[in-house]
Parts: sequence; C-alpha cells; structure tokens
Amino acid sequence: MTTLIIGAHGQIGQLLIKTLVAEGETPRAMVRAEAQAQMVKDLGAEPVIADLEGDFQSALKGCDKVVFTAGSGAKTGPDKTILVDMWGAMKAVDAAKAAGVSQFVMVSSRGAEDPEAGPAKIKHYTVCKKLADDHLLRSGQPYTILRPGRLTNDAAEHKVTTQWPTEADNQWIPREDVALAIKHCLKTPATVGKVYPLFHGELSFREALS
Amino acid sequence: MTTLIIGAHGQIGQLLIKTLVAEGETPRAMVRAEAQAQMVKDLGAEPVIADLEGDFQSALKGCDKVVFTAGSGAKTGPDKTILVDMWGAMKAVDAAKAAGVSQFVMVSSRGAEDPEAGPAKIKHYTVCKKLADDHLLRSGQPYTILRPGRLTNDAAEHKVTTQWPTEADNQWIPREDVALAIKHCLKTPATVGKVYPLFHGELSFREALS
Repeated sequence: MTTLIIGAHGQIGQLLIKTLVAEGETPRAMVRAEAQAQMVKDLGAEPVIADLEGDFQSALKGCDKVVFTAGSGAKTGPDKTILVDMWGAMKAVDAAKAAGVSQFVMVSSRGAEDPEAGPAKIKHYTVCKKLADDHLLRSGQPYTILRPGRLTNDAAEHKVTTQWPTEADNQWIPREDVALAIKHCLKTPATVGKVYPLFHGELSFREALS
Repeated sequence: MTTLIIGAHGQIGQLLIKTLVAEGETPRAMVRAEAQAQMVKDLGAEPVIADLEGDFQSALKGCDKVVFTAGSGAKTGPDKTILVDMWGAMKAVDAAKAAGVSQFVMVSSRGAEDPEAGPAKIKHYTVCKKLADDHLLRSGQPYTILRPGRLTNDAAEHKVTTQWPTEADNQWIPREDVALAIKHCLKTPATVGKVYPLFHGELSFREALS
C-alpha cells in the first residue's frame, strides 16, 4: 500500500510520516521545494515535489490512498485559504478519483459542518473547509473525513472522542493524536464513508472510529 | 413580477434599478443600511434592509425573480470574497430555491469557467465565482448566468457578443450594458438554463442572448 500525503511538510504531515514509517511503511510525501524534500526523506518518506496550486496529478501515480492535510496556515492571507485549503483540496479529490485511489482521508476542521453556527472570525476558513468536504462527499471518491478540534502540540494521549465536548475550551486534540487517527483510518476499511468530529477523549481509536 | 436585486447598491445594481424603473417596474432592492435604503428608494426601488452575511430569507418573500450582483469589491480582502461573492451567492441560490423563485440571474465573471486558465493574480476571485456558479448549476433552481468581461463605466452601446474577443484588452463591457443584458434575461424565458459570456460587440441583446 502506498499512501500519498499532501501537506507532508506541515506539522500533522510530519507526525503522520513518522507514524507510518514506524509501521514499516514508506509513505509518499508531496512537498513544494527541494529543502522540504530532504526533510521528509530524512523522516523516512519518499518525497515527490509538486505544487498544489498547479498540476500535481503525476504525484498520485501508483498511490492507493491519499491523505490531504495541507493548510495555508496563519502566515498567509485568505487568498491562500481559497487556493490551498479549498481549491487545492478539491483538485486533490479530482486527482484521486482520476487515479482510482481507494481511500481519500481529508483532514477537515471543527466548524466545517456548519459555518453559520461558528465564530465570525474564522467563518471564511470554515466555509472553505466545508465546501472542500462537500466536494469530496459528492465526488464518488471513497472518503474518510476527520474534523479535529483546536490543534495542540501536546503528546499523544491515544484517547479520543467523536462527541463534541460541551465547553469550547475543551474542544482540542493533540496533532499527534490526529496523525494516529489518520493511520487508524488508513488501516480500517470500516472508516470509509464516514465523517468524524475528533477531540481528545476517553476512547481508543478503534472504539471511537468504527 | 417582482424582482429582488441583491447587491442593489453596487454600480450594476443601481443601473439595473434605473433600467427596470424605466420599464415601469418597482424592483425590490436589498441593501445593508438605512442610508443605502434611501438612495435606492430615490432611484425608484422598494428597499429591503438585509445582510447577505446573515439570514436574508425574508427579503425574498413574494419575489418572482432574483438578480445576484453583489460583490465585495477591491476595498476589502479575500475573506469577504469568500463570504460575499461565494458563500453569499450560494446562500442566495438556496434562499431563491426555498422561495420558489422562477429565475435566478447570476452576475458572474469572465474567468469563472476555468480559473486554472486565467491570471494567477485574480485566481482566488475566479475560483470563488466558479464555485458559486457551480452551486447554482446543480441546485435545481432555474438560472441564467452572465459572465461579463472587464467592467467599464462607458455609456451603453446596446451591442454585445457572447464570443470571446481574441485580445485580452478587448474583453470589456460597459456596466450599463450588463444591466441591460440582465433586464433582457428577466424578460426572455428562453434565457433560462443558459450561461453567457458577455462582452461589447455588434449584436443586439436579442440576437446575442437567445
């Protein structure tokens, strides 16, 4: 099984590479530049240099699965939220479908289920994430969608929940647990066709993501 | 027939009010604020104050047709391109469908047919316009989509074309001709279900938009 990670140089991407390499796999890591390629190679991945804002179909060649965890981040403006988080994700879905990929794991976000109900400050972001998710949901491409809460750099707890914590302050999850959740989904066919909210909790990945 | 104009305070919106009032109609003009309401009332429209970024379903009550010509413009950032030009347009389509509107005229843009093929500088904008158009196309709501070229403030020529001029410099159209094209579409049932590129040209509206 070859998994392409789109957004491999990001924080979750790097944690996912380590997780899959620890399982004896060699994921393919899509990055934009040579310096990033060396870095993901050092983590044990097979780098492929391609631009999410261009034509990256060839990066999927021979891949069975795709994980989309790219995000433009807080350092760039909402124009990049449009071009990377939304349009890039939609193009990745189309590329996966064209390549006959068996599972597309989308790292979405808390709030994407209903941008109108969330905070105004991040609404432009949750709208973009929702529309990318909607594109995947109607694409015919087999999918798993994860919607993690606020991401932290805490160590993995290996315990999660798909139930929304009542208090907003409690709606968080370590990035490392998101990476472990992605790995669980890649190895568990029953997660295909599911959309999971994801927060720190009291259940194992197997219990929470079934 | 009552037509709701969303984006009535914009340049095309105001020209469209004047055009419809000259035909003896009283369009309903959706605006955000009291000062704008007085202004569109002075032009002969019936103002309704509602926020495209909120819930504006009630503004459509009793309307037969909807024209969407709202745009966040160049003074605000791409976050507003997301929330107004794309998400606002999608919500307007949903509201029109819920209200049983017989025609939704979308003022889209040159470039929305293929953002990848257009200039990188405005790609975030053409992506948002394309996704709004796509939402309308698959909504089941009867539509007419106009995709005008670069907008100018020249006087109406009353002559247009749906053929792309070869030279980019020539891909323009006066806003007043866009307003006249919208009026033509509202009065011509054969334009329902059509997507028209729109530039200054040599044909009458009847000849070009059939």
